[in-house]
Amino acid sequence: MSYFEKFLTTNRAYADFHGSAHLPLKPKTQVAIVTCMDSRLHVAPALGLALGDAHILRNAGGRVTEDMIRSLVISQQQMGTREIVVLHHTDCGAQTFRNEDFARHIHKELGVDVTGQDFLPFTDVEESIREDMAILRNSPLIPDDVIISGAVYDVDTGLMTEVI
Amino acid sequence: MSYFEKFLTTNRAYADFHGSAHLPLKPKTQVAIVTCMDSRLHVAPALGLALGDAHILRNAGGRVTEDMIRSLVISQQQMGTREIVVLHHTDCGAQTFRNEDFARHIHKELGVDVTGQDFLPFTDVEESIREDMAILRNSPLIPDDVIISGAVYDVDTGLMTEVI
Repeated sequence: MSYFEKFLTTNRAYADFHGSAHLPLKPKTQVAIVTCMDSRLHVAPALGLALGDAHILRNAGGRVTEDMIRSLVISQQQMGTREIVVLHHTDCGAQTFRNEDFARHIHKELGVDVTGQDFLPFTDVEESIREDMAILRNSPLIPDDVIISGAVYDVDTGLMTEVI
Repeated sequence: MSYFEKFLTTNRAYADFHGSAHLPLKPKTQVAIVTCMDSRLHVAPALGLALGDAHILRNAGGRVTEDMIRSLVISQQQMGTREIVVLHHTDCGAQTFRNEDFARHIHKELGVDVTGQDFLPFTDVEESIREDMAILRNSPLIPDDVIISGAVYDVDTGLMTEVI
């Protein structure tokens, strides 16, 4: 049995409590959170977000890629968000490999040559946050008056600390 | 005051209850959820996920882009996930525009020419799920034995329905 079947079962119980209510498409706080896919970070409770409060964007590392910019442009231009929080975390999977070794591993496991592709690993989590905030600040697609903040989330303690 | 300041304050209370515990980097269920950034979908409670259970990947629409594939390859090859759930939802922001109009809007608002860029809007949510499942099934970077499922989430009722 796949986990998907279990999710469908659990979700029926969740939906029973959810009730029927239409919240607006546009997030109430006008904030978009850019963060990592990590399983130990549950963004909504960790930041105190209710349903309808903020966009939550997640990829490996919480990195500001072209696809992240695509999503943020839609978030801002179609749904009115005006603030971005870049939230990376301790003990990240993006800190467990280097591009060259990873490309060798993928060639061995999958027979695919990904030499030269940047999988966006990093070593210093504060540096990766600063780097991604800089990409946002320099992007012509992100207006200058958008508020951009950064923080690191500690997956062991649940605590979020600002990075400037 | 930015919302970021409020998040930091709320997070201190969350961390007080979190306690200190080190969960493994590898997700317990070996599942990665691919879904949308929408503010009305809180993935963990909706699927019954505890901290440490599953990777959660989110962009505008929950679309399978190159960056999504990058993230899934890291999720699978570095952190052992073996199942993917593509979860799109009703009343999606990706259903509110077309590329051509959106490019005109961006040129007017930001002075940037994004003509020809696909922002991945869709009209039919079941079609978008099938399209993204097909991209995953056809990707040489996703092993053939990975379980791939799809579902649509109703943001008004909280209910998730399988799409085949």
